[in-house]
Amino acid sequence: MTKYLFINARLLDNRFVNVAVEGAFVTYIGDGRPEAQFDRVIDCRGNLLMSGFYNTHCHAAMTLFRGYGEDMSLREWLDTRILPAEDRLDDDKVYYGSLLAIAEMLASGIVSFSDMYFFCHKTADAVLTSGIKANLSRSLVSFGEGARIKGDTRFQESVALCRDYHGAADGKLLVDMSLHAEYSNVESYIRDVSEYTAKEGLRMQLHLSETLSEHEGCIERRGKTPARFFYDCGTFLSPTTCAHGVYLSDDDMDLLASVGATVSHNPCSNLKLGSGVARVSEMMKRGVNVGLGTDGAASNNSLDFFREMYVASLIAKGSSCDPTVGKAADILTIATKNGALSQGRTDAGELMIGKRADLILVSLEDVNTMPTYDPTYTAVYAAKASNVRMTMVDGRILYENGEYTTLDIEKIKDGFKQVCDY
Amino acid sequence: MTKYLFINARLLDNRFVNVAVEGAFVTYIGDGRPEAQFDRVIDCRGNLLMSGFYNTHCHAAMTLFRGYGEDMSLREWLDTRILPAEDRLDDDKVYYGSLLAIAEMLASGIVSFSDMYFFCHKTADAVLTSGIKANLSRSLVSFGEGARIKGDTRFQESVALCRDYHGAADGKLLVDMSLHAEYSNVESYIRDVSEYTAKEGLRMQLHLSETLSEHEGCIERRGKTPARFFYDCGTFLSPTTCAHGVYLSDDDMDLLASVGATVSHNPCSNLKLGSGVARVSEMMKRGVNVGLGTDGAASNNSLDFFREMYVASLIAKGSSCDPTVGKAADILTIATKNGALSQGRTDAGELMIGKRADLILVSLEDVNTMPTYDPTYTAVYAAKASNVRMTMVDGRILYENGEYTTLDIEKIKDGFKQVCDY
Repeated sequence: MTKYLFINARLLDNRFVNVAVEGAFVTYIGDGRPEAQFDRVIDCRGNLLMSGFYNTHCHAAMTLFRGYGEDMSLREWLDTRILPAEDRLDDDKVYYGSLLAIAEMLASGIVSFSDMYFFCHKTADAVLTSGIKANLSRSLVSFGEGARIKGDTRFQESVALCRDYHGAADGKLLVDMSLHAEYSNVESYIRDVSEYTAKEGLRMQLHLSETLSEHEGCIERRGKTPARFFYDCGTFLSPTTCAHGVYLSDDDMDLLASVGATVSHNPCSNLKLGSGVARVSEMMKRGVNVGLGTDGAASNNSLDFFREMYVASLIAKGSSCDPTVGKAADILTIATKNGALSQGRTDAGELMIGKRADLILVSLEDVNTMPTYDPTYTAVYAAKASNVRMTMVDGRILYENGEYTTLDIEKIKDGFKQVCDY
Repeated sequence: MTKYLFINARLLDNRFVNVAVEGAFVTYIGDGRPEAQFDRVIDCRGNLLMSGFYNTHCHAAMTLFRGYGEDMSLREWLDTRILPAEDRLDDDKVYYGSLLAIAEMLASGIVSFSDMYFFCHKTADAVLTSGIKANLSRSLVSFGEGARIKGDTRFQESVALCRDYHGAADGKLLVDMSLHAEYSNVESYIRDVSEYTAKEGLRMQLHLSETLSEHEGCIERRGKTPARFFYDCGTFLSPTTCAHGVYLSDDDMDLLASVGATVSHNPCSNLKLGSGVARVSEMMKRGVNVGLGTDGAASNNSLDFFREMYVASLIAKGSSCDPTVGKAADILTIATKNGALSQGRTDAGELMIGKRADLILVSLEDVNTMPTYDPTYTAVYAAKASNVRMTMVDGRILYENGEYTTLDIEKIKDGFKQVCDY
C-alpha cells in the first residue's frame, strides 16, 4: 500500500495542514511532517482536501436508461419505458451499466454508494474491479397473499449475493437486504425477510413514502403509514436506509429516529419525477439520520454529488423561502458522515486521524471556484465534479486528474455501447 | 475569418449533418459537402452541435463576491456583506471580476450575457478582449423626491457607456439602459430615463417583482404592482428584460406580454436567496417571452447554463408535482432563442442557415452523457459544462477543449487574486 503525505492541504474548516495516509487510514493531520517514509508527497496547494461522498441511494446499472423516457408521468414512465426495458436486463448490461455509473461517481468524488437492483453479482464484480465501496442489495418484491421466502428465487439470489460478496475487499463491499417498497410486497414475505435480516445481522434498504399516492395508498390499504407498517413487521430491528421519505409524517419521523434509521434524501429525483420536497430540516430536528442519494441515472440524470448537494441546499432554501436553511455545513455532513453511518461504515465519512482515507481533492483555483472565502461555501454552492482532482478510497487513488487507475474507460464505453441496445 | 465545416454533427433533433460557417454566419446545414474552400474541417462524431446560450441576467463582476456571504437572510446579506463590498469596487476589481466571469461563462457554452452593474466600461473592455457577446447596462438608482436625470452622474455614466461602446465589435457589444428596480428609484427619475431610452431606441433591463416584500411593498407605496408602475412611467415603450418576475400577477404577465417584454427566469438565484419560484409555465402560456439567467455569482454561485437549465426544469416539475412540465425542449428554447430575442439579436439564438454562428459542441461520449437516446434530454438532464468541447461566437472559436483562444487564463487568475482583497 502506498504511503501518502498530502502537504499544504486546505481543509473545510479553513486550516492549512499536512495529512498522512498509511494503509487504508489517515494517520496524521497537523502542521508538521510525520516521521514515516512516504512513497508519494502530494502538494495540495490551491486545493481543498476533504472527505469523499457516500451516496445512500442508487440503482447504478440504470445508466442504461439515462434519458430513455422523459417528461412523462411517473406511471407512464415506469409502465411504457422502464419496466419493459428492465425485463431485458442481463448480466452484461448490468455489468457495463454499473461500470459506467461507478466511473461517473468516482469523477464527482463519490467513494461509496448504496445500491438496490437485480443481477447484483455483476454490479459486485464492477465494484470489486473499481475499488469503490458499496452496500449492494438485491431488490425484493413479492406477490400473492401469504407469499413466503421459502423457495422464492429472488430471495435466494439475495442470500447468494450475501454469501459470495458480503465483506469482500476488506469490507469495502458489503451486502444489505432490500425490500423494494411496501406497495410491491406482501406482509408475510416482508415479515420473513425482516426476520432473516435481523437474524443475520444485515442492514436493510427500502423505498419509503416517495410519493403521495404511495403514502396515502398504504394508509388506505393497511390502515397505517408505510413507516409504521414496516415497524410492525419488524423491519426496523435491522439498521435501515429508507429512500426518499418525501411524505413522512411527523410521527413517522419520530419513529425512524427512535429506531436509528436513515432517510436517504434524493432531491434531484424527487423534483424530476414530480414527487415533491422532503422535509429534511424537520427530519433532522427530530433526530433522523439523513443521508444524500442520487437515485438511478434515469431519474436524475447525473450521478454527481456536487449537483446533488447543490440541489439539496437550494430546494431547502427555496421551498421554505428561507435562505438560512439548507446550510452548506449541514449539507456536507449529510453528504459525508451521515451517509457513511447509514452504510455501517462508522470508521469513515470524516477526515480524521484513525478514520478511513476516503478522501477527495477539489481545486479551489479553477475559474468557477475562485475566490474561496470559506471552503464549505465553495464545496456546496460553486464546486462541480469538474473540480475534483483526486478520489481516494481506503488510501488508494482511484481517480486522478481525469484519469482512472483501476478502470479502462475506453473499454467500458465500448462495452457499454455494445450492450446498450434499447 | 476562418471558414469552418463541421461534419458528422448530431443536432438536437437527432439528425446527423454537416454544417458550414463562413464569416459570422451559418451558411449550410445538410447531408452534402458545400463547394467552398474550408480552412478547417471539424469532425463532430460523438458530439452534439447546437446553439450556444444567451444569459439574460447577470452581474458579471460579482464573481468577486462568490461565497462572500452565505446562509443568511437577504437583508443581512445585502447590508453586511454585499453593499459594503460594492462600495470598495474599482476599475481593476470590475475588470478582473468580469474576465473571470466571462471565462466561466464561455466554458459552459454561454455566447452572450446581459449585465447590469457599475464600472461598466471595464466590463466592456473585458467583453471586447474575450469576443463574447453582451448587452451591458449601468444600473441606475435614484433618491429624493423629484430627482431628475439632468446633472445626475450615474445617468451620465450610462450615456457615456452607450456613446463609447454601443454596437462595438460588429454589434457583439450592445449597451442597454437600466433601472435597478422600482423600490430603488424615484418616479420622476424613472420617467426621465424611460423617455430617454425610448427616444434613443435603446433596450431596458430592470429587476421586477423578485421578492414578495418588493412586490407587495410597491402595491402599498404606489397602489399598483411594479409592472403596472413601470408601464405607467413609459418604461415599456422600450423593449425590456425584467429579471426574476417571481411574484408577477396574472395581470402583470398579460401586461408584459402585451408590450413584448422578456422575463429573465433565474431559478438558482431565486431558490438560493429564498425568493420563491417564478410561474414560468403561466408566463409562457400568456405569451411572455421567457429567457434564462444566472444572476451574479454571489447568488448562484456558478455561471453555468447547464446547471441553470437543469434547475429550471426540475423546479418546474417539482414545484407543481408534475414531471410533464419543464420539458427539455422548452427549457432549451428559453436558454437560446428567447434569450437572443430579449437582447435584440434576432439573427441569432438558433442553429439555422443565415443565422449567427453562435454554436457549441457538447460531447455525447463522456461517462455522464452516455447513452443519448434524444439529444434534448441529454442537453438538459445530463450534460454539464465539463462536456462542452467548443464555444463559438459569430463564427469565431473562443473556447476549445478546455483552452481559451482570446483569454490568458493564468494572467486573469493572477490579476483576479491580486485585486480580490475582501
